[in-house]
Amino acid sequence: MSDRVEKVVLDQKLAMFADAWSPRIVAELNGQHVKVAKLAGEFVWHQHEAEDELFLVLSGRMRMELRDRELELGPGELVVIPRGVLHRPVAIDGECAVLLFEPASTVNTGSAPEDPRTRTVLPRI
Amino acid sequence: MSDRVEKVVLDQKLAMFADAWSPRIVAELNGQHVKVAKLAGEFVWHQHEAEDELFLVLSGRMRMELRDRELELGPGELVVIPRGVLHRPVAIDGECAVLLFEPASTVNTGSAPEDPRTRTVLPRI
Repeated sequence: MSDRVEKVVLDQKLAMFADAWSPRIVAELNGQHVKVAKLAGEFVWHQHEAEDELFLVLSGRMRMELRDRELELGPGELVVIPRGVLHRPVAIDGECAVLLFEPASTVNTGSAPEDPRTRTVLPRI
Repeated sequence: MSDRVEKVVLDQKLAMFADAWSPRIVAELNGQHVKVAKLAGEFVWHQHEAEDELFLVLSGRMRMELRDRELELGPGELVVIPRGVLHRPVAIDGECAVLLFEPASTVNTGSAPEDPRTRTVLPRI
């Protein structure tokens, strides 16, 4: 019912944590999670076998590296990485904040679970 | 493969149309659509029986009216309306642009298909 309906202020959520590459869940719907995350430096190359993944830049800039090219994204720009596509997100010039939209089953490092930044249980904030 | 991966610039998409209450699809993933829409004035009261719906304000301000209260949202703020929850989006002070995340099956007017603003086939831009 409507008592479950609350506004989510993304800047407030981002102010609640500092660590990079550690997504937080801020909303869920239709079996999908809406997450926020901070990016700093380079992540690990990986792919997701069964999940498409959306990155929407909220602040800062990032580069999405693909096998054969790369895309640069700033605030108000998004990209969908289809399942099976190898990719590496990289923050440009300091920190970048993103909103992620992906199935609840998605693990951040996908095919690279040995990476120490792997997060299998995400806090809900 | 990675040749399917393209950046989506939300402001560019919003500049491609002027009509309110007529969502455009800008991306899809995991059976869900990412849409942008412009709001002006009041929409119709409705609910979605089988779909949760996310509104993220991109510019302007909106009020999400619920049966017993209302939420006001500005840029960088989002709300999830769970399935079965009656709601009415209203733009405040002119136009408001939003990003929507919802299942591909979602029709904008939900339980109010008689509304002339009902859109069952959405353009992909």
